[in-house]
Amino acid sequence: MDAAIAGAVETGSFTAVVRASNHFGIAGWYALRAADAGLIGISMTNSSPLVAATRGVDPVLGTNPLAVAAPAGTAGHFCLDMATSTITRGKVEVASRRHEQLQPGWAIDAEGRPTTDPAAAFEGALLPLGGVEETGGHKGYGLTLLVDILTGVLGGSTAAPLIIPLFSTQGGAADLGQVFMAIDPEAIDEPGAFEARLEQELELLTGSRTAPGAPDRILIPGEPETAAERRSDERGVVMDPEHHQNLIEIGERAGAPFPATTPIGG
Amino acid sequence: MDAAIAGAVETGSFTAVVRASNHFGIAGWYALRAADAGLIGISMTNSSPLVAATRGVDPVLGTNPLAVAAPAGTAGHFCLDMATSTITRGKVEVASRRHEQLQPGWAIDAEGRPTTDPAAAFEGALLPLGGVEETGGHKGYGLTLLVDILTGVLGGSTAAPLIIPLFSTQGGAADLGQVFMAIDPEAIDEPGAFEARLEQELELLTGSRTAPGAPDRILIPGEPETAAERRSDERGVVMDPEHHQNLIEIGERAGAPFPATTPIGG
Repeated sequence: MDAAIAGAVETGSFTAVVRASNHFGIAGWYALRAADAGLIGISMTNSSPLVAATRGVDPVLGTNPLAVAAPAGTAGHFCLDMATSTITRGKVEVASRRHEQLQPGWAIDAEGRPTTDPAAAFEGALLPLGGVEETGGHKGYGLTLLVDILTGVLGGSTAAPLIIPLFSTQGGAADLGQVFMAIDPEAIDEPGAFEARLEQELELLTGSRTAPGAPDRILIPGEPETAAERRSDERGVVMDPEHHQNLIEIGERAGAPFPATTPIGG
Repeated sequence: MDAAIAGAVETGSFTAVVRASNHFGIAGWYALRAADAGLIGISMTNSSPLVAATRGVDPVLGTNPLAVAAPAGTAGHFCLDMATSTITRGKVEVASRRHEQLQPGWAIDAEGRPTTDPAAAFEGALLPLGGVEETGGHKGYGLTLLVDILTGVLGGSTAAPLIIPLFSTQGGAADLGQVFMAIDPEAIDEPGAFEARLEQELELLTGSRTAPGAPDRILIPGEPETAAERRSDERGVVMDPEHHQNLIEIGERAGAPFPATTPIGG
């Protein structure tokens, strides 16, 4: 991403492709580096197969996140950071641990039938954003595939359906692909002009009328995550006891003791 | 788009921004020009407000289409061309004319309440891809806003909520923004290597197992549109009698007679 930022400052826009990679963490983290520098940043990665194609049964594509960030003056940063599947695998894990059901349209079982059972979803596949075909899932399938094309296919990594499973310790490297793009608005405008326009746009949006029963005002994409980051900076990172215990044990095995923690009840 | 293609062939990737524009027709048409030239093409436009923000009531963003195309050898072109709203305004018009109801999650009425009545939807707003917040509509809202940022906000056009209504004959110019991006895979690889990889990827996807009750095999985004174009080239463009009569009358008013047509019954 730093190469894309430097390139965009010089030429207006720049695309950097990474091959033979692995899980890259939070997609938005990279896009936000560009926003911090006053540019528009885009980052994407492909990932291990978990998502079915529309009409399909088997997991053939990853949850392939797409992140775009841009600076908006006093409104903060716009940061859209989304899996192109309806949900992430993490949400299925949480539902499974809490013995909760999934929402309809989130997953299918090993035979391709819609399911709300987390255990059946682990054996089957997640659905792309939009769910099944009748509710627009073909758009999400297109988005998931689009991310794969701009990352793995462009860079020459393993074809998506052949990527090794998540958490696999055999079968070689993940060989994922990533793309990082940056656009410098100053290439076509006065310094600060783009940022001022985006600030005005976001103020118009977040200040507009809310629907009956809305839990709060209209948000800017990335706003809940920025608030969560601020809370964690101030009060530490909150985690559940099971997760905490796992990390202590992993730390002991690895000879890296887990740092001190503070119980906060609950 | 032609400027973006020429720039990308020279430098690897290129971004062109258009300001003070109007309706640009089919988004995919531009992206496909790049695919025809062996490149990855991206085109987007903002548009008149029809879509509510997540939690919002008023139409503050357009249906803002996003199109991406890429060549895939004998598999044809990948071409994702999608409105970032759940549906286009055209689908509401068709439902209205046929006295059909909309699907839940497609639209809200003038007070922000979910509606399946086309007339109420015209007074209210469409929902972004994913529907309401509970079903992931905030992702679609982010995508719609993302397209607006890369087009109108980047280029310096009118802020989205202030764009004149669709079909308006007063209030000045639409002042839309558009972006055209091209990436040349040959900048980082042998000629034809990207195309061969995408062909393999699409063959793996379309050849994989289908779900029970699937109407057909798994499709490549853009495949139904390519088939429809071929049918129209061979047998002419099919239209309903009401639409046909409208075009004849507009042609007479404009002194441009409508060409000969062939009734096909039904």
